[in-house]
Amino acid sequence: MEYDPQNPFARILRGELPSLRVYEDDFTVALMDIMPQADGHVLVLTKEPVAEVFDLSAQGAAACMHTTRRVARAVKAALNPPGVMIVQLNGSAAGQTVPHVHFHVIPRHAGLDLKLHHAVPADTAQLREFAERIKAAMPADA
Amino acid sequence: MEYDPQNPFARILRGELPSLRVYEDDFTVALMDIMPQADGHVLVLTKEPVAEVFDLSAQGAAACMHTTRRVARAVKAALNPPGVMIVQLNGSAAGQTVPHVHFHVIPRHAGLDLKLHHAVPADTAQLREFAERIKAAMPADA
Repeated sequence: MEYDPQNPFARILRGELPSLRVYEDDFTVALMDIMPQADGHVLVLTKEPVAEVFDLSAQGAAACMHTTRRVARAVKAALNPPGVMIVQLNGSAAGQTVPHVHFHVIPRHAGLDLKLHHAVPADTAQLREFAERIKAAMPADA
Repeated sequence: MEYDPQNPFARILRGELPSLRVYEDDFTVALMDIMPQADGHVLVLTKEPVAEVFDLSAQGAAACMHTTRRVARAVKAALNPPGVMIVQLNGSAAGQTVPHVHFHVIPRHAGLDLKLHHAVPADTAQLREFAERIKAAMPADA
């Protein structure tokens, strides 16, 4: 997948599109997926302009994992889902829809079918509530 | 999910069960999944005795990502699948089957259904061939 600087995540990073952020540091931004596959679905974006994990720098990959692990802990603490899935997709054959490296943190409940494709937009007020709860549960930087 | 020191990955790490390794360092081991969800399915195991990503140390998480990114590049270079998916599951509700933190690197082809559950054992000779090709394609440590 080719990188496209006009992709929605690049535009969010530049502040051209709104987002519900739960965390940000020099290398990553974590925000609520507006087309969630489950309640509390968070995306971790690299700030590097790369489409696939193969092109991510070693430092960028480490930073994504650092944030993703912390977000996973926060989602678990805030929403207590029985399962949490971390997914990173490369190529449309793998289900990637936005050409900008991102990690999904998805709460999972037994029996719910896995949907890797975006479905319907979430209610904004509910998204905002999840964002606040996850933000409040972000662990210390360790 | 509780950690069980007798889980098959712990036994593989102790050398009590055989495995087809494509990479190993101080913190991680990468090996062929013997019940692959696609040809070239590789697992990256942490050497830490933890069941879920919430309990993985920051260093352990960074090491897993470092190896996973390199394995993903090697799988892409060796087998050239149109897509590559990275998955890490926590809790049986998320599809986790072995209580030891591991990352899946799964080649994806459009139209193939996603199967997150283990299905049938792979042919050992074929697994060995994939392992050799992926090992040969492992990028330099950067």
